[in-house]
Amino acid sequence: PPSSKKDYSNRGMTLEEDINAANMYYVARNLASVHKKPTPVQIVNVDYPKRSAAVIKEAYFKQASTTDYNGVYKGYHVDFEAKETRNKTSFPLSNIHEHQVTHMEQVTNHCGLSFIIIRFSPLEETYLLESKYVLDFWKSKEKGGRKSIPHAFIKENGYHIPFHFQARVDYLKALDKVLAKLEEDEHV
Amino acid sequence: PPSSKKDYSNRGMTLEEDINAANMYYVARNLASVHKKPTPVQIVNVDYPKRSAAVIKEAYFKQASTTDYNGVYKGYHVDFEAKETRNKTSFPLSNIHEHQVTHMEQVTNHCGLSFIIIRFSPLEETYLLESKYVLDFWKSKEKGGRKSIPHAFIKENGYHIPFHFQARVDYLKALDKVLAKLEEDEHV
Ligand SMILES: [Mg+2]
Ligand SMILES: [Mg+2]
Repeated sequence: PPSSKKDYSNRGMTLEEDINAANMYYVARNLASVHKKPTPVQIVNVDYPKRSAAVIKEAYFKQASTTDYNGVYKGYHVDFEAKETRNKTSFPLSNIHEHQVTHMEQVTNHCGLSFIIIRFSPLEETYLLESKYVLDFWKSKEKGGRKSIPHAFIKENGYHIPFHFQARVDYLKALDKVLAKLEEDEHV
Repeated sequence: PPSSKKDYSNRGMTLEEDINAANMYYVARNLASVHKKPTPVQIVNVDYPKRSAAVIKEAYFKQASTTDYNGVYKGYHVDFEAKETRNKTSFPLSNIHEHQVTHMEQVTNHCGLSFIIIRFSPLEETYLLESKYVLDFWKSKEKGGRKSIPHAFIKENGYHIPFHFQARVDYLKALDKVLAKLEEDEHV
């Protein structure tokens, strides 16, 4: 176990590493079952040496048709993309690919919980932002609108994910707030 | 489009190909968003040639920690494994790996719809069987019980998936029956 206090900070860890650690923690605690999807690879040539494991000798990266993570939490289908930016004042939409937006739209249509986890690295701030907002900004961008989501907008409409020792990006707490709001809206 | 009637039959198509085709049909019709997870690969060495795509030069197959397919349907988290057997009278549990059983258990615990799609190839019969039954047989096997699930049991407790021209393995129809039963049980 790490002995210096410095090791507990988020410095040097990527957002993906933090989310993977959180997912392991959630599975170990039986809180949720969320996994990162493997990188899609087009395998062209495989070698089968005697007495040892098959070796892939030629393969190419394929574009993912979905988002990075999905799984189940409290019966809800959870699907999200993780994105880091070095910007301080806004999240550039160029970080998101068209096919990811299409996928977010589909998950939302089928009543899944679709969102992105955005980290502003220089600020050391991480937020959960529901896809409906991302889709709004995306559509407005396509009509000639702004090409990024302001930090202030994300701060107001997203949910801040504080650093947590055991689950570095403890996004389930933020998700609980989304769920509370959904249930509130249903009962109005 | 295929012109002979023979092409419409399931002969020669693997179960995975049929399910992939069904998923494409469902996405195109906006009925569900279900995808096959990519094969997990441990990438060791990548070449970056000038002016062309990166080439993976050394990689190894990793064991999947989850099941083959997942996604969202009518707000439900859907997660399943596809398995073909050449047997006629039973489905051997040796077709399923321990980590897949663990994953099915976790998805079930978090109220996802977990199941397997089993095809008895020689019979040209395909069934949807909820994971709760698989887990029961698995636990009984571990206590020295039988090592397979009888065809008759699957026929009685699972849902037959008839061949459908546009979605060769039209499993959503079978899933609707599972959902109807769940809702019935809730209101008793
Ligand atoms: Mg990402
Ligand atoms: Mg399989």
